[in-house]
Amino acid sequence: MVKRYLSLAPLSDALGILEGSFTCTPSVERIPVTAAAGRVTAGPVFARFSVPEAHLAAMDGIAVLAEETYGASEQRPVTLRGAERVNTGNLLPPGCDAVIMIEEVRIDGDRFTIRGPASPWQHVRPVGEDIGETEMILPSRHRIRPHEIGALLAYGITGVEVLTVRIGLIPTGSELVPPGERPGPGQVVESNTGMAAAWLEAQGAHCIRLPLTPDDPALIRARLEEAAEGNDLVIISAGSSAGTRDFTADAIADLGEVLVHGVAMKPGKPVILGRIRGRPVIGLPGYPLSAVTVLRELVSPLLARYGLPCEPGVTVPAILASTLASEVGVEEFVFLSVGRIRDRWVAVPHGRGAGVQMSGVRANAYLAIPPGQEGVEAGGEVQARLMVPPEEAGQALILTGSHDPALDLMADRLALAGVSLHSAHQGSMGGLLALKKRVCHGAPMHLLAEDGSYNLPYLRRYLPDEELVLLCLAGREQGVISREGLSLEDLPGVRFANRQKGSGTRILLDHLLREKGIAPSSIPGYDRELTTHLAVALAVKTGEADAGLGVYSAAKALGLSFTPVAREPYELIFPAAGWEDPRVRALAAAVNSPPFREALGSLGGYDLSLAGRLRRLPG
Amino acid sequence: MVKRYLSLAPLSDALGILEGSFTCTPSVERIPVTAAAGRVTAGPVFARFSVPEAHLAAMDGIAVLAEETYGASEQRPVTLRGAERVNTGNLLPPGCDAVIMIEEVRIDGDRFTIRGPASPWQHVRPVGEDIGETEMILPSRHRIRPHEIGALLAYGITGVEVLTVRIGLIPTGSELVPPGERPGPGQVVESNTGMAAAWLEAQGAHCIRLPLTPDDPALIRARLEEAAEGNDLVIISAGSSAGTRDFTADAIADLGEVLVHGVAMKPGKPVILGRIRGRPVIGLPGYPLSAVTVLRELVSPLLARYGLPCEPGVTVPAILASTLASEVGVEEFVFLSVGRIRDRWVAVPHGRGAGVQMSGVRANAYLAIPPGQEGVEAGGEVQARLMVPPEEAGQALILTGSHDPALDLMADRLALAGVSLHSAHQGSMGGLLALKKRVCHGAPMHLLAEDGSYNLPYLRRYLPDEELVLLCLAGREQGVISREGLSLEDLPGVRFANRQKGSGTRILLDHLLREKGIAPSSIPGYDRELTTHLAVALAVKTGEADAGLGVYSAAKALGLSFTPVAREPYELIFPAAGWEDPRVRALAAAVNSPPFREALGSLGGYDLSLAGRLRRLPG
Repeated sequence: MVKRYLSLAPLSDALGILEGSFTCTPSVERIPVTAAAGRVTAGPVFARFSVPEAHLAAMDGIAVLAEETYGASEQRPVTLRGAERVNTGNLLPPGCDAVIMIEEVRIDGDRFTIRGPASPWQHVRPVGEDIGETEMILPSRHRIRPHEIGALLAYGITGVEVLTVRIGLIPTGSELVPPGERPGPGQVVESNTGMAAAWLEAQGAHCIRLPLTPDDPALIRARLEEAAEGNDLVIISAGSSAGTRDFTADAIADLGEVLVHGVAMKPGKPVILGRIRGRPVIGLPGYPLSAVTVLRELVSPLLARYGLPCEPGVTVPAILASTLASEVGVEEFVFLSVGRIRDRWVAVPHGRGAGVQMSGVRANAYLAIPPGQEGVEAGGEVQARLMVPPEEAGQALILTGSHDPALDLMADRLALAGVSLHSAHQGSMGGLLALKKRVCHGAPMHLLAEDGSYNLPYLRRYLPDEELVLLCLAGREQGVISREGLSLEDLPGVRFANRQKGSGTRILLDHLLREKGIAPSSIPGYDRELTTHLAVALAVKTGEADAGLGVYSAAKALGLSFTPVAREPYELIFPAAGWEDPRVRALAAAVNSPPFREALGSLGGYDLSLAGRLRRLPG
Repeated sequence: MVKRYLSLAPLSDALGILEGSFTCTPSVERIPVTAAAGRVTAGPVFARFSVPEAHLAAMDGIAVLAEETYGASEQRPVTLRGAERVNTGNLLPPGCDAVIMIEEVRIDGDRFTIRGPASPWQHVRPVGEDIGETEMILPSRHRIRPHEIGALLAYGITGVEVLTVRIGLIPTGSELVPPGERPGPGQVVESNTGMAAAWLEAQGAHCIRLPLTPDDPALIRARLEEAAEGNDLVIISAGSSAGTRDFTADAIADLGEVLVHGVAMKPGKPVILGRIRGRPVIGLPGYPLSAVTVLRELVSPLLARYGLPCEPGVTVPAILASTLASEVGVEEFVFLSVGRIRDRWVAVPHGRGAGVQMSGVRANAYLAIPPGQEGVEAGGEVQARLMVPPEEAGQALILTGSHDPALDLMADRLALAGVSLHSAHQGSMGGLLALKKRVCHGAPMHLLAEDGSYNLPYLRRYLPDEELVLLCLAGREQGVISREGLSLEDLPGVRFANRQKGSGTRILLDHLLREKGIAPSSIPGYDRELTTHLAVALAVKTGEADAGLGVYSAAKALGLSFTPVAREPYELIFPAAGWEDPRVRALAAAVNSPPFREALGSLGGYDLSLAGRLRRLPG
């Protein structure tokens, strides 16, 4: 039987249904105070005793009875005999009510001479100055901060009752293998419940992960019952879309009730909200980014209702670098790389495939496009929600343009300098446009012109007035990647994996084919567009294609054959106005650093004599 | 020998000396990926295999060879035989290069009828779409976010090398008892290393706490050697001021070098920065808030140099509620309660005693007054650094004025509603002034006027034009607190603990003394000012005073005798303009809630018939 989502609930309705259907009573656990930072108090916490419990000296000096010091002055020093030497924190001796600082006392054996009077209670820490016995230290539902651990210990508290939500996590799917096992064809590593546990535990929940459960209705029912028995909340991963093996919704309906199946959000549409034995049951979609979105938009707000608030990231207004279409009636979430460019935030959208977990890894922010909105135009302002601290987002360096594996090495070097490199692989021509629109800091580029030179003719045509700096990352070799030593002349008739239009490699290929007089139409797969060198190499490695054009390091990484066809400079283009930006300075320093050069050398196929070459193009 | 800080290093110099004196190489530990959220990568992490490793169906539907579907249309449906039913995530069968969604297919046994063509590679997840074998997942020095745990697991990573800094923590001081033990006279609970460990571990350090070490130079030296042996960094707590028992600086000098002793910061002045066996040694002052300040201003930046950055809080511009003096040449740090009042942030400073750990607990922000600045005037703008998420600070409700233990109960009730109550105990008159200056949301008050009525005459005099709402928290009994049943008439000649000028209780006392014809000068201690009811009760309990005036609940909490002298309404005064604020609504709801009334009832001494009474004063 094929099921469909007959109607999708708006996200706001789904939240309302969750809110209205459950009382959300958290569990309480008692933990040592020393482990309590970040946890939320279950009830108020009161001081066991006063601090201090007796008057203490607040300074190093001598303890005195103030009235015995009256009359002392520079002219008429007074020598005290009853005084006593005390250090900060010492008990104030009986009969004393003030402390005179040691710097103001002349000491001669047990004789203390002073040149001024003390006022009563000066430099004394009175009983209960810090806290009084029975006073409240912390109220209920307070997230304990690290510095408060000291206060709790000091006031006699060693254990504290904190809130938690016990969550049973059930991974389902016959295609799953446990982490650490290499998946066979058609298998995937079960990673969603590990991710969900990390996400939920950061918010203060306690997760119990049940064993991998194959797609078997009886087993799924049994696990749901088991999880609902001992926990406050149940999350069942995958099995929530409408395929033939999706038994989750039926199992929830058998044991309890399905409240919502399908929410008008993307990613995350196939989510299930249900109830078993009065407890919420969330059916998490299988695609990792769908799962993340459901956790963030539905489960985190639900945990907040149990008393475990989540800290929303800071929101910044940003200029969108490229147009985003969006389906009306659906709330869409898009991962972004945001960075400060010329005194404004710029947001570069990542691809939206829910299976591309790397989009979430590469992103430092995300965007919600409300259901009423039909996308956002490039250049429009959006509210970007940061997924990193604002300081870290402010250190993002955005490069848009051509892709090269060396950019990963550069990202690693820059991370050591506190700069986070975000590269958007939009091809050399894409980089040129991003430079023109001022939505990147720099553009990696290798555009071969008719005259055989690289980049300059294109830059002059597209950015005629802009002063630019061209920094060569390295020279590099392009060649035919194949399993068995194919060369350009062999391409007609073999299955080819091409790069996208506007990429420097595609422009190079077209140039070479013209030179050799080879017609693109003679090459099967010429229209199959992939966006990175490694994707081309993978297509060759898996046998889907016989050949592709790409850099040596991609061929080497996958152990493929490489027939060189061209050498080219791989340059990063920066507006001269941004050349002194500290992030760009860090990059320029890294290009010239021995570790980067060594790393490039071991990738292979790079010409280091060009690395660091600077060219300037006047405005 | 009495030592002094001959010269204090400016804080910026101290940071520079730390930076210049150590290379700060972190330790590396290997941990399971599932425990890695929040940790910082020691090196780049690469994918073990591609995801997916083969082409997969991206939709539930049928897998086809696209060219066999060409020509299909609404008018000319095509029935396929070679097609195969697939679900999302299934391997694409050999010979197929596209998937048609199940919704677009009519199924009849193994016959599939379609009404439109498929394009090659539609609804297919190509090999490596998410990540390619050997590609970098995360760079070095990347703080792992919870959602990245899924990516790491999915790409074959189960363990990851992360940075840490191994810190040896040495608690010193003969006056210390371990947490959980009740301190005797002059003893204190050792809480600073527990607090430091929580603070430093939140930043990613690994702390080893050494045993309590008494003030013995040989023992301190031995512990320093032990700690320097196995750790990257040593922190020795207390023993860093210049008292007779402070051996820390000498011990560090014996074993290595003292770089700085004394920094021009407050709190935190007596800090020591030193070096033993090339490792940094920090001498943490004993006062808890001095210790916190040194951790925040010196140790956290040092950990950042090891690769463990700390997330600075958000800074907001705020109007300072009262003048703060500051010593020129010293960088002063002051804890604040900040809240949104009438569309601006207002900052109320806490007391500055370094021993009053509760100031740090009650605060949600702090302020740094630079060394060149001679304090800040009330009404001036300051940059408040938040110690809670901005959303939480936005939920702060600031009450300034009279103190009553019932405010703690209210804080607890409000916390359940997501509102954090900050009450500044400045007496009823202080509350009146804060209302006038618009630096509080409301003011708790019990000001007895000449005509025997409460509050209204004062409000009309000080706020003649303001429309106000008076909400009675409860009626309450004031009385003489003593150990043995003293009454007002007994006060002449007994040692008295008074409240501060401007407090409603002080005004009440003066009124009662006039009524009874008792001269204040006949009461010893009339000039000794304490700021809360509990402080008065504590002074009586410890025998420092024989009597004081306060509320019943304070006497009851400490098991003291109470002789009633007056009943009064304890009212919260709000500007009518702020009465509809959701935080104030939450408070009004709590006043009328059964749990609050029950809690007041068990404190004792409150007249619940007045609780919730509203009075309105027109503008």
